[in-house]
Amino acid sequence: MQYQHGGDVYSYSEQFPGTTPLDFSANINPRGIPARVRAAMHDAIDLCTQYPDPHCRALRKALGQRWQLDPKYFFCANGAAEIFYRLATCLKPSRALLTAPTFGEYEMALRPTGCDIDFFTLNASEQFRVTARILDQITDDLSLLILCNPNNPTGCTIDPQLLIQIIERCRAHQTWLILDECFGDFLLDAHAHEMRSWLDQYDRLIIVRAFTKMYAVPGVRLGWCMTKNLDLIAQLSTSGQPWNVSVIAQACGVAALTCTDWEEQTASEIAKSRQTLSSALSDCGFQVFPGEANYLLFYSDCYDLREQLMPHGVLIRSCANYRGLGQGYYRVAVKSDADNQILIQTISEVLTHGS
Amino acid sequence: MQYQHGGDVYSYSEQFPGTTPLDFSANINPRGIPARVRAAMHDAIDLCTQYPDPHCRALRKALGQRWQLDPKYFFCANGAAEIFYRLATCLKPSRALLTAPTFGEYEMALRPTGCDIDFFTLNASEQFRVTARILDQITDDLSLLILCNPNNPTGCTIDPQLLIQIIERCRAHQTWLILDECFGDFLLDAHAHEMRSWLDQYDRLIIVRAFTKMYAVPGVRLGWCMTKNLDLIAQLSTSGQPWNVSVIAQACGVAALTCTDWEEQTASEIAKSRQTLSSALSDCGFQVFPGEANYLLFYSDCYDLREQLMPHGVLIRSCANYRGLGQGYYRVAVKSDADNQILIQTISEVLTHGS
Repeated sequence: MQYQHGGDVYSYSEQFPGTTPLDFSANINPRGIPARVRAAMHDAIDLCTQYPDPHCRALRKALGQRWQLDPKYFFCANGAAEIFYRLATCLKPSRALLTAPTFGEYEMALRPTGCDIDFFTLNASEQFRVTARILDQITDDLSLLILCNPNNPTGCTIDPQLLIQIIERCRAHQTWLILDECFGDFLLDAHAHEMRSWLDQYDRLIIVRAFTKMYAVPGVRLGWCMTKNLDLIAQLSTSGQPWNVSVIAQACGVAALTCTDWEEQTASEIAKSRQTLSSALSDCGFQVFPGEANYLLFYSDCYDLREQLMPHGVLIRSCANYRGLGQGYYRVAVKSDADNQILIQTISEVLTHGS
Repeated sequence: MQYQHGGDVYSYSEQFPGTTPLDFSANINPRGIPARVRAAMHDAIDLCTQYPDPHCRALRKALGQRWQLDPKYFFCANGAAEIFYRLATCLKPSRALLTAPTFGEYEMALRPTGCDIDFFTLNASEQFRVTARILDQITDDLSLLILCNPNNPTGCTIDPQLLIQIIERCRAHQTWLILDECFGDFLLDAHAHEMRSWLDQYDRLIIVRAFTKMYAVPGVRLGWCMTKNLDLIAQLSTSGQPWNVSVIAQACGVAALTCTDWEEQTASEIAKSRQTLSSALSDCGFQVFPGEANYLLFYSDCYDLREQLMPHGVLIRSCANYRGLGQGYYRVAVKSDADNQILIQTISEVLTHGS
């Protein structure tokens, strides 16, 4: 039961009993849960004496209004992570292509299906950008391509013109394309990167999103996808239990979709904080990559930086276990300016005096 | 996306806008959510800015204390329903045996694996009891047997002596045995039916339970299983996403496990109400089967009883879509005496005057 991700504050508290870390290892909106969303969740507790709506009707209706798409094209799940496992079960790809590095759950979800997995290596020398070389790997043999945009843990976006070429090439070869836009709402130019309009052009395109990061509700579990492929939606629905999205999660999502300015305000605040944090990390002597999301990837020749920071109450994500990365790579969330200063101060102390 | 279960109050409200039914179609404790559990859920909302503990450490520790078993032998999930899908994926049985009727999700979870499924038919003439005939169907060819005890929708328990014979025969043939005890805590003689002590004797025995019905939290999604098979526990953990149990569900479970008298008090109250309700349903001219759980199965030659009751604000479960049952079979929850009287009055009116 080895855990491979950030956000494991529970293991931290086992190691340092009675303390809670300042957690930079999970990429959660530092503004917290919007008051309206929190209120809706409290209200929903009394409704938990009923099973959840297995069809998530109110939530899909609200998503449909937000995305200008009929509610029947949405599938909701117990976090975006559940979507990847259900998609792996439904699509049964014979060969899949992932980038390296990227979010580890794609590979975890695909492995049990017996699928062959190829990797498109992203290089530090190219600042981990997806390049046009990827087009050559999209062939008739390729059943599935999964792209995370912006990518986790690099924060890099794919150039929209290249992404459109990728979609067109997938269409030409009938390759399923899963676009994970879970961090897309943190981009300053979010609309330029949204590929929602391509759903109408290609019915093997699936866009995955979540409420997790933007609405600071990773503990609630709520993700969703949209595709014009109704056969796939039907398969997703029966590829697991019917009550996968809790009453509280559905209420949370409906309320979040009424918070109209939340995403743009957050993206704007985060962009400023990210710039400051990026400069400060560079000043620490680290190689900081140009991420556009609410987290930053950097390289340090201090291979135990995470372990050194932990006794000081600061938790960062070591990226050593990402395929395509290795020791010395770290990811930190962009939090509030005050918290980011604590991170930088703690790093400086550790580098100067040791832990 | 056809929905096959009870508790679908959302479809009801679409058909009868602005109204909520008195719902006898889902088997939920009429005492509601214990105050302590509700409070724990409210408190947990602010903790949802963190990912859930992927290992459910606090919850498994509390389960271990309750069941006198090391926490490592438990696996927690997004409702018991998720357990059946994960078990189907992990066990990959070539041939499985289910009773007919029983909870429909076992078959739904097994079908996608390509498994052959046999059925042990329960007969109305035997009051739907599992009999010793089932032993002959447990052979080397049988990979998996799933038994629901007490069974859904009949409420019948399996004679404990026969159940022990079944376990021993499964052990002799190395047949996996999943015992779904999700309604076990509603039995007056709950301990006589618990097979927890057999976990030590047979490591292909899996006992599934949930908080759903007893703690009136179907909307929260929290189920779990226990088995001495650590390989299986490890497989269950990686057969889907790591964050399948929400922060609120984990807090709910920990709080529920502190409600020491809740289960016995409920079982005692339900037993009295069930007796009264059973007599009243018989007085309506229905054939009522001798269920021991918080619901009753009955037969009526009125094939549209459910539809006739709906405009009167009462929802019952038609069991026509259960394999092994058919038109005229209905399941009703045992609710409070006051609610049960409304059910009986409404049935009487409908039978006398039509809807």
